[in-house]
Amino acid sequence: MSYRLFIANKNYSSWSMRPWVALKALDIPFEEVLTPFDGAGPQAAFTSFSPTAKVPCLHEGDDVVWDSLAIIEYVAEAHPALWPQSRTARAWARCATAEMHSGFPALRDECSMNCSLRIELGTPSEGLQRDLNRLETLWCEGLKRFGGPWLAGEGFTAVDAFFAPVAVRVQGYDLPLGETALAYAQRLLEHPSVADWISQGIAEPWIDEPHEQDCLRGRRVLADRRA
Amino acid sequence: MSYRLFIANKNYSSWSMRPWVALKALDIPFEEVLTPFDGAGPQAAFTSFSPTAKVPCLHEGDDVVWDSLAIIEYVAEAHPALWPQSRTARAWARCATAEMHSGFPALRDECSMNCSLRIELGTPSEGLQRDLNRLETLWCEGLKRFGGPWLAGEGFTAVDAFFAPVAVRVQGYDLPLGETALAYAQRLLEHPSVADWISQGIAEPWIDEPHEQDCLRGRRVLADRRA
Ligand SMILES: N[C@@H](CCC(=O)N[C@@H](CS)C(=O)NCC(=O)O)C(=O)O
Ligand SMILES: N[C@@H](CCC(=O)N[C@@H](CS)C(=O)NCC(=O)O)C(=O)O
Repeated sequence: MSYRLFIANKNYSSWSMRPWVALKALDIPFEEVLTPFDGAGPQAAFTSFSPTAKVPCLHEGDDVVWDSLAIIEYVAEAHPALWPQSRTARAWARCATAEMHSGFPALRDECSMNCSLRIELGTPSEGLQRDLNRLETLWCEGLKRFGGPWLAGEGFTAVDAFFAPVAVRVQGYDLPLGETALAYAQRLLEHPSVADWISQGIAEPWIDEPHEQDCLRGRRVLADRRA
Repeated sequence: MSYRLFIANKNYSSWSMRPWVALKALDIPFEEVLTPFDGAGPQAAFTSFSPTAKVPCLHEGDDVVWDSLAIIEYVAEAHPALWPQSRTARAWARCATAEMHSGFPALRDECSMNCSLRIELGTPSEGLQRDLNRLETLWCEGLKRFGGPWLAGEGFTAVDAFFAPVAVRVQGYDLPLGETALAYAQRLLEHPSVADWISQGIAEPWIDEPHEQDCLRGRRVLADRRA
């Protein structure tokens, strides 16, 4: 049996990025099936492989796993290295991952992911500043407690993959964070699986207007890495 | 080592309810520590036990597990019966649980949980109707595929606990759902661990105004089960 991972545009799809980066980083083989976004509204093309018409979605035999975090737990049953080995580090990693899965609403809403653009953020809103403060606390806690260089210790695990799209935003919007957090975001960007995703995103031929507008929101583009 | 589960008011705290109901239903012993909500804004009293100042939070020895879904996965390592036994049912249960964890935004926002009140809903908003349609599809799929009476088959598992607060809302707001979904919600309400939580919530002495207002939103109260 083998894994098929359904994703959308690498340039935009932050949820697709998480399991893709996690599986690549841990050398877990899978087949990638990319369906580009098609303008605004529900994505009709996604209904052929996902019960929520959302990405990511993983298929293995008859199993259909339609959520990023469930994909991690499902694959981790066969590949436990997706989570840290120590029970305490694993507990922490699962909490930080779950917090990203349901939290950081302003960061996700106001700084939509775009691997190609550098955007002038301006003064962060109150909600965004709250999310950045929490992000900083969380990252510094993990790095200190488990000794780095990754969030839950020496190995790159699913919790790092869950924050990979945040590193793209840190760079793209030049988010104001302290030294330790910025260094960790930089480490993420340089991880081979993250760097691969980003360069493949930049190389994509598709432009999805709703995603482009959602990144801009009247803010200024400082650079566009697409050809 | 033993589990201490930090929760807030049973009458209001839908996130606290999930792991509490799951652990009770599976006969997993834990000590409950209840800190009532204290008006609007961040809950200062919660910072003494939770890094996000949110509930639920589970302590075991030095481990601090600060998210409802992470609590389930953490405890499931020692008590695998929290998830269904078959790999396929477990995959489905994890997806449905993760979908509840990050989704159903209108249902969570517009129909705040209150174990005591019956409220006149009026015509559901577009977003709420979308969530109800998805809920119906999801529940019916699980019940049909795994044969019931619970979402992932014969045994009550974490996925049922994650939808227990939804059953409270189905009753409290008389949510329009089909026969199969309503029967499942009723089954949930009658499960001993769910029924215990609800009756303890109704018996609480505290009234938290922000939560009461959030339930009302100008809608009419049809009944209040508090003495
Ligand atoms: N909670 C889901 C979120 C998935 C999600 O929102 N995916 C976005 C793309 S990054 C999507 O498919 N959007 C299409 C739509 O909402 O119509 C997960 O963790 O997998
Ligand atoms: N994603 C969290 C959500 C926890 C949550 O939002 N809890 C609410 C109570 S039900 C809370 O503590 N609110 C207090 C606050 O936000 O200040 C989880 O799954 O545990």
